[in-house]
Amino acid sequence: MKETILPHTVEPDPQHLIWTERAATNFPLNDMHAFLEGSHDEAVHTLTLMQQIERDPILNVTPNYYELSKDEHRKITATKIARLAQYMEQDAPNFQNFQDRLNLIALIDPQLGTRVGVHLGLFLSAIRGNGTEEQFNYWAYERGAIYIKDIYGCFSMTEIAHGSNVAALQTTATFNKINQSFIINTPHIGATKWWIGGAAHSATHTVVFARLLVDGKDYGVKTFVVPLRDSNHKIYPGITIGDIGAKMGRDGIDNGWIQFSNVEIPKEFMLNKFTKVDNNGDVEEPPLEQLAYGALLGGRVTMVTDSWRTGERFITIALRYAVGRRQFTVSGSKVENQLINYPLHQKRLLPYLAWVYGMSIASWQIHNDYKIVLKDLDDGVKSGDFKILSNAIDNLKGLFADSASLKSTCTWKTADLIDEARQSCGGHGYSAYAGFSKGYTDHVVQCTWEGDNNILAQNSGRITIQNVMKFEKNGKSNGNYNFLKFAKKEVILLSNDSDLQDLSKLNLSLQSVIYRISLKCIEKLKSNNNNWDLIATEKLALSKLYAAEYILDKWIIKLDKIDNKQVHEELKNLAILFALSNIENFSTYFLQTLIFKTSLLDQLKSIELKIMSKIRNQVIGLTDAFKLSDFFINSVLGNHNGDIYNNYHDVVKNLNNDNLVAPYTPDLVAMLNRSSIADREKHQRDANTLKKLA
Amino acid sequence: MKETILPHTVEPDPQHLIWTERAATNFPLNDMHAFLEGSHDEAVHTLTLMQQIERDPILNVTPNYYELSKDEHRKITATKIARLAQYMEQDAPNFQNFQDRLNLIALIDPQLGTRVGVHLGLFLSAIRGNGTEEQFNYWAYERGAIYIKDIYGCFSMTEIAHGSNVAALQTTATFNKINQSFIINTPHIGATKWWIGGAAHSATHTVVFARLLVDGKDYGVKTFVVPLRDSNHKIYPGITIGDIGAKMGRDGIDNGWIQFSNVEIPKEFMLNKFTKVDNNGDVEEPPLEQLAYGALLGGRVTMVTDSWRTGERFITIALRYAVGRRQFTVSGSKVENQLINYPLHQKRLLPYLAWVYGMSIASWQIHNDYKIVLKDLDDGVKSGDFKILSNAIDNLKGLFADSASLKSTCTWKTADLIDEARQSCGGHGYSAYAGFSKGYTDHVVQCTWEGDNNILAQNSGRITIQNVMKFEKNGKSNGNYNFLKFAKKEVILLSNDSDLQDLSKLNLSLQSVIYRISLKCIEKLKSNNNNWDLIATEKLALSKLYAAEYILDKWIIKLDKIDNKQVHEELKNLAILFALSNIENFSTYFLQTLIFKTSLLDQLKSIELKIMSKIRNQVIGLTDAFKLSDFFINSVLGNHNGDIYNNYHDVVKNLNNDNLVAPYTPDLVAMLNRSSIADREKHQRDANTLKKLA
Repeated sequence: MKETILPHTVEPDPQHLIWTERAATNFPLNDMHAFLEGSHDEAVHTLTLMQQIERDPILNVTPNYYELSKDEHRKITATKIARLAQYMEQDAPNFQNFQDRLNLIALIDPQLGTRVGVHLGLFLSAIRGNGTEEQFNYWAYERGAIYIKDIYGCFSMTEIAHGSNVAALQTTATFNKINQSFIINTPHIGATKWWIGGAAHSATHTVVFARLLVDGKDYGVKTFVVPLRDSNHKIYPGITIGDIGAKMGRDGIDNGWIQFSNVEIPKEFMLNKFTKVDNNGDVEEPPLEQLAYGALLGGRVTMVTDSWRTGERFITIALRYAVGRRQFTVSGSKVENQLINYPLHQKRLLPYLAWVYGMSIASWQIHNDYKIVLKDLDDGVKSGDFKILSNAIDNLKGLFADSASLKSTCTWKTADLIDEARQSCGGHGYSAYAGFSKGYTDHVVQCTWEGDNNILAQNSGRITIQNVMKFEKNGKSNGNYNFLKFAKKEVILLSNDSDLQDLSKLNLSLQSVIYRISLKCIEKLKSNNNNWDLIATEKLALSKLYAAEYILDKWIIKLDKIDNKQVHEELKNLAILFALSNIENFSTYFLQTLIFKTSLLDQLKSIELKIMSKIRNQVIGLTDAFKLSDFFINSVLGNHNGDIYNNYHDVVKNLNNDNLVAPYTPDLVAMLNRSSIADREKHQRDANTLKKLA
Repeated sequence: MKETILPHTVEPDPQHLIWTERAATNFPLNDMHAFLEGSHDEAVHTLTLMQQIERDPILNVTPNYYELSKDEHRKITATKIARLAQYMEQDAPNFQNFQDRLNLIALIDPQLGTRVGVHLGLFLSAIRGNGTEEQFNYWAYERGAIYIKDIYGCFSMTEIAHGSNVAALQTTATFNKINQSFIINTPHIGATKWWIGGAAHSATHTVVFARLLVDGKDYGVKTFVVPLRDSNHKIYPGITIGDIGAKMGRDGIDNGWIQFSNVEIPKEFMLNKFTKVDNNGDVEEPPLEQLAYGALLGGRVTMVTDSWRTGERFITIALRYAVGRRQFTVSGSKVENQLINYPLHQKRLLPYLAWVYGMSIASWQIHNDYKIVLKDLDDGVKSGDFKILSNAIDNLKGLFADSASLKSTCTWKTADLIDEARQSCGGHGYSAYAGFSKGYTDHVVQCTWEGDNNILAQNSGRITIQNVMKFEKNGKSNGNYNFLKFAKKEVILLSNDSDLQDLSKLNLSLQSVIYRISLKCIEKLKSNNNNWDLIATEKLALSKLYAAEYILDKWIIKLDKIDNKQVHEELKNLAILFALSNIENFSTYFLQTLIFKTSLLDQLKSIELKIMSKIRNQVIGLTDAFKLSDFFINSVLGNHNGDIYNNYHDVVKNLNNDNLVAPYTPDLVAMLNRSSIADREKHQRDANTLKKLA
């Protein structure tokens, strides 16, 4: 008997849903994409690089990527590095082009991005930042490190017992006057260099952070180039290297640990742009300690970009799924409702969509600031003019503060986004082929490395409070703290529905809450013996609020310059949602500082629902505008064609088509078909037997 | 030249720190352990089972576990299942003993727990819940499924296009009157059974959820036993099975997908305790739909226990590390400060410690309730007495509500706990050997399966509001909603420091906020056409607050029965912290409903700091009290001996000692030693060449 398919069953129709909503996109995608990418030119630049990456047979990434073991990931990553070395040569001397390429690769293959990033962004940046021009030229150009040729560098900063507190690192570099050399040593297990990316198998050289000891005096932590392996890749005597092994994610990186047992290096291997030791052991120290770390801020800046693009990728998957997936029938309807129609689902995802748009603004802004600061610093050092240098250092400090807040806030936000996006796809989010799993485990390390988020946020919060202290004292503020001049003191800034949709007022309320929390903190410091630890949660909140204000402030300025009316409308809605969701998250602070009254909370929520119901209608367009191809999405749930269930089923089938009899099937069969326990123990517990034994 | 170790370097001293604090434990561990485990007898029972597991050479888990590939995990899990089948025979007929054993195994090897749990807790529970006694006896005892003998079951509920909405499943079971059989069919891709644990390689039988179609009429979703493989483990014709492949975690489970192409089963394979189809196709339907799902609540109940024990495990690692790790010097000190001394670090971890203690209370309570409900239901069905049955169904509904709130809240809480614990260990938290990685990826599926957390929380919130509606109408409440009688209406329940340390008042404030939010929701429903979706965030908050109230209420009662003064003191501090941190998380609701004024927020925070500084001094004792051996902790950062850095280094060294030359080393060497690009392209771009070509 054939069973009757209709009318009892209903085929799912995700393609129909997604394409219908795509057709209803009411703004030009190219203009929106240009907004996200900073400009039309940048947008074309990005698409061109993306096309090259996608077409490259070696850089290619497919769902199979989610199947690989640690060793397979490491091997394939090494092959890709060799491929990238070719691109480096081709891109030279336009190193920015290569950096842009690498940032895009990091979106689909973060471990590859890191493994090259450690060499370029840490090893070479450290030499550029701390070495003289001649030193940089030698290691980078004469030897070839700039193209990963001859030299592959790693970055030996962190030790097993010290990470964030760099000043307390325990590795020593003792000056040997007789040989005019330094002795690099690991005095105890706590000083073992740890987590060193590339050390386990790849690096030929490293920059070591070690305490400079001259004639028994400790000059603090300085940097030294130390060769690890020769041109046959043999590790030198005195150097003990181990593989760190399995990690939560990014298994393609060969992190290692290193112990130095009195390893001697020529005096000239010390990086001495700022610190110099002469033949007699006289030490010249840098004018300002911060100078040595300027070049390392690049990593934090890049992580804002990473957070943005990673956010684009995962919110796209979740929103396409939310449009294509039906679940439960609402009264009056015969078909099941789309997930995205539920206000709770909107509330779970749309504020993250707004954050993704916001992070694009932050990314472009801070990258720009970073380039300016680096140039100013270079000019300052070269000119030897203390005034230029001092100004550059002020800007560097500003960048340090901004990047501390943005790096921590954005990497956390994207971690939360991936997690919520995964949960919003239900069980299917748990499939490795959905992409969330490796996406999450790869991403979350960004919350920890190159400045632990909690410590960065504490720094950022402290800097904000210090700026308010200064402002209170002399009415002066500068850089991104100029808003303090507008942070109004009068109570109740938001009081009705129209305030809640007025971007300037919303922004002013963010600025004011930062100002007022800081004032409260200053009071607390006064009455608590200046104990900053007691206001730790406030500092954390201040850092996150600062990032929100930073973004909203620039968002409003950018909005003014947008010609296309529909693009403007969508971006405005997203900006309002961005502001409201941030205010809601920190609403106790807004209440405490009297920026609005408790009675406004319900209004805020209903305005939020209203704005979200508008954005909901454009979610396909707003994510299509990222222009991420299926290759860059790499998720069975998020393909552009919307054919969710067939895409998913096909990938699962293709990747798992030859193992329906598992290697352990015979064991299972033996277990299932085993004889009875009485037989197996030859009836030794049977009543009859026990009677005999009695 | 030898370098001088002292005075420039300082060896880390985690062991000293941890043992010193251990020695300062001011309460008897056994009494605290008995509190956590419900009683002294239960505590001994747990320890006895733990010892058996730890000593079993096959069930053994070591850091190497974190290295295994998907296929290795699956193989080793199958071997362990065969071992557990022996324990099943040994434990019989004390199946509770085996269940307790399995719950403990799930702590160190969640995938093994699941793979057996699907068979026992889903397949067999479905037969017990939906089948007649005779049907259960046949499949479970006569065939041997109760010992995983002859039959290995899986549970075919979820389909690729339907998960939470079970009523809309699309697989059909059409009655064939001529053959007296059912035809099981998958009408389209959307109806493909998906995520079926054990289907890919293990299961011989499954319980299929399918729409019963008789004479063209759709009777909704019912359950059927369908054989998948014969005794040689060959898949029957008409059944297409595939492997779901890689997942975020629990790779040891062979999840599969199944399509049925008109598979015929005898009519008697339908589970017909409640729904019966007679030979003529007349259908008898169950008195109440809920009855069919009662047995499945076991999974949710077990997840409360899982969340508690998993929480114990990971908070122990983080707190031992926080005591042993030093970071940054605070003014006036020569040595670096312990992480745990920072108020922010306390704030990040100690509320989770309080939750872990709270979850132990929830776990014991709801397990107890569950057992009673199951017994009452059985008695009701057997007696045929509608009054007994109706009472049992009321209790079942209460359990449904409680488990919805507790399952979702506790699984989320533990997911957050693992993540925060990992981040609190800095970079080392990212090492696979720290345990957080697999711990997290294995755990988070609990937020999604067997009732998606968001949907459960919506249900729970809705039930709370409905209870308040009823209470408002007739002043009646029952079960765990009896507190509504005490939920005071007068404003301002908390107003000073002493209120904030008064557990009864704190509990009353939780009860009141639930009551008052519900009243607001009822108003909103009235003015919004009864649209429950508009109060989704409130329902979510209500569910979480309900769980907090559930726990605190029982905590207060248990506190009264504790004799030991120090144990009482510590548990009281934890209970206050539990209450305060929950109140703080939902403080906007407390402000909106006038339970306290904005001015109290600062007091709340400072009381919290005060309580945390007390708890801080006992964190080693409070986690030692879990009595989890190093085997059950399985983390390089969390060993009892406190020798963090040596433990960690040793494991990393032992597991990665033979691969310092990677298989890809030759590729790297070739890349590094490559000739110049000009040579490789035979100088075709040299000025000379180009002149020739001009």
